[in-house]
Amino acid sequence: MHKLKAKFKATHPMRLKLTLAYDGRPFAGWQSQRGGATVQDAVESAVAVIGGPPPDGRILRVHASGRTDTGVHALGQVAHFDPPATTRLGEAEWHRALNAVLPATIRVMRCEAVAPDFHARFDATGKIYRYRLWHAEVLPPLEYGLAWHLHGCLSESRLRESARLFEGCHDFSAFCANRGEENETSINKVRTIRKITLQPQGELISLTFEGDGFLYKMVRMIVGAMVRVARGHETPERLADLLARPTQKKPGWQAPPDGLSLLQVLYPA
Amino acid sequence: MHKLKAKFKATHPMRLKLTLAYDGRPFAGWQSQRGGATVQDAVESAVAVIGGPPPDGRILRVHASGRTDTGVHALGQVAHFDPPATTRLGEAEWHRALNAVLPATIRVMRCEAVAPDFHARFDATGKIYRYRLWHAEVLPPLEYGLAWHLHGCLSESRLRESARLFEGCHDFSAFCANRGEENETSINKVRTIRKITLQPQGELISLTFEGDGFLYKMVRMIVGAMVRVARGHETPERLADLLARPTQKKPGWQAPPDGLSLLQVLYPA
Repeated sequence: MHKLKAKFKATHPMRLKLTLAYDGRPFAGWQSQRGGATVQDAVESAVAVIGGPPPDGRILRVHASGRTDTGVHALGQVAHFDPPATTRLGEAEWHRALNAVLPATIRVMRCEAVAPDFHARFDATGKIYRYRLWHAEVLPPLEYGLAWHLHGCLSESRLRESARLFEGCHDFSAFCANRGEENETSINKVRTIRKITLQPQGELISLTFEGDGFLYKMVRMIVGAMVRVARGHETPERLADLLARPTQKKPGWQAPPDGLSLLQVLYPA
Repeated sequence: MHKLKAKFKATHPMRLKLTLAYDGRPFAGWQSQRGGATVQDAVESAVAVIGGPPPDGRILRVHASGRTDTGVHALGQVAHFDPPATTRLGEAEWHRALNAVLPATIRVMRCEAVAPDFHARFDATGKIYRYRLWHAEVLPPLEYGLAWHLHGCLSESRLRESARLFEGCHDFSAFCANRGEENETSINKVRTIRKITLQPQGELISLTFEGDGFLYKMVRMIVGAMVRVARGHETPERLADLLARPTQKKPGWQAPPDGLSLLQVLYPA
C-alpha cells in the first residue's frame, strides 16, 4: 500500500482532514458515480463551490478512509483533500463554509489541517462500526432506516456466543461480498476483529465491531450470520467451520444496510 | 366538554384505542386538510382500505387526543375509531392490518378494544411532551428535524430557573398562539403544568412537560421563552410578569417544531 501512497503525495501546502457524519438514507453510498447522489459527489461539489474550479479543469478529489454502501450511515467517516492553492481560507473557515454549502444530511464534525502526507485511507490502522438491531413487534417510525427490524425468537446468549467466534484473526472469505472488480479473488481476506461488544437497551441491541480493517460488506455478512444463529436457523459450529475452511461457498447472509454506521476511523496517535 | 362528548356517543359495538407514533417531518401535522399529507388522512385512509367504505359514503373519522402541528413528532399520540360494523376483525387483526397499510413513518404501537364511550380527547386527563435542544456548533445529520439546534451561550441554570416559573397553575394567554378560529379569545387559558424536567446528556438537553392540557403552540412558546432567558436575552422577571399579567401583548418567542414530541396522553386508570 505504501507504493500507492507515494502516488497520492501532496503537492499543495495544506491538507485538510474532515471528520464527516452522514445520514445514509438519501445517498447511494460514499463513492462518486454517474448520476451523483453520493456523499463523495456532495462533498466534492461543496469543495468546488467554495474553492472554485481547479485550474486544470479536473474534479478536486476528496479521499475517504473507505467506501460506505447505499443506506449505510457514518458518525465518524474520515476524508482528506488539498484545498486549491488559490484559496486563502484556514481550517475554521473551510469548516464553516462546507457546512453552509452541504445539505443537512451531511455534516463536517471536525476539520483539521494535517501533515501534507496524511492519507485518510492508507494511514488508517482500524475502524469501528456499529450495527443496531431492533427486536420488537413494531419498529418505531424514528428508527426506520436506522436499525434492522427483527421480531420473533432472538436469543441474546446465542448472539453473544456467535460474536465470540468472529473475534480474533481469521480469513473472512466466507463473510464478504465480491465487488465484481478485477483481481478480486487475489486480495488477502485475512483481517483481525479486535473486539465485538453487545449492548442491549430495551428493544435495541447495539453491536460494535472494532477491527484492523473490514472487507466489502463484511460487517453486514457477520451480523446476518449472528442473527441466523440467534434465531436458531444455524449452529455456532457452522460459523466456526466457515471461518476454519474459508473457501466454501459463501452463505450470503447479508444484514440490511439500515442498521450500519461507521463510527470511527483509527489512526496512529 | 361533557355536552360535546354526548354528541360523539358510539353507535357501534366496538371502539378501538390506537397508540400512535409518527415522524412529524413528512406530514402537515395531525389534522385532516385539503391536499392530504396529514397523519389523520393517512390513518383514515388505512382504516378505509381495511374496513371498506362506510355504507353512508362518509369518511370514517379517527379522533385524536389533540392536533399536532406540522413537523411535530409523536411517540404516544392516542386516537380512537369505531370499525365499520361489517368488518369482523379483532383488535390484533386491526393492529397488524393498519401497520401493513400505513407508511413506515406512522406506526400503531398498541391497538386495544375499549369501552364504547371512551373518547381520546375528552377522557384525557393530561399530556406529556418532550422538547429536545441540541447545544453544539454542529447538528449531527441524524438529529436534523428532531431537535432545535442552538449554539453560542446557553446557561443551563437559567433554563432550570425559568422552567420553575412555568410550573403550577397559570393563565398561559401570553404563551400560546391563536388558531384564527371563532370565539378563540373566550377560551379559558388557565392550565396546570405539573412538572418540567430537564435532562442534559452531552450536547442534548431534553425538556419534559407534564400538564393537564396544553394550548395551541404552548410548549413551543414556553421553550422559546426559556431559551431566550438561557441566552441572556430576557430576564426571568419578564417571564414571571407575563404569567402574572397575561393580557399583555404576546411576545411570540416560538421554538421550531423540530424538537417537539407528544410522548404520552394520560387517562384515568
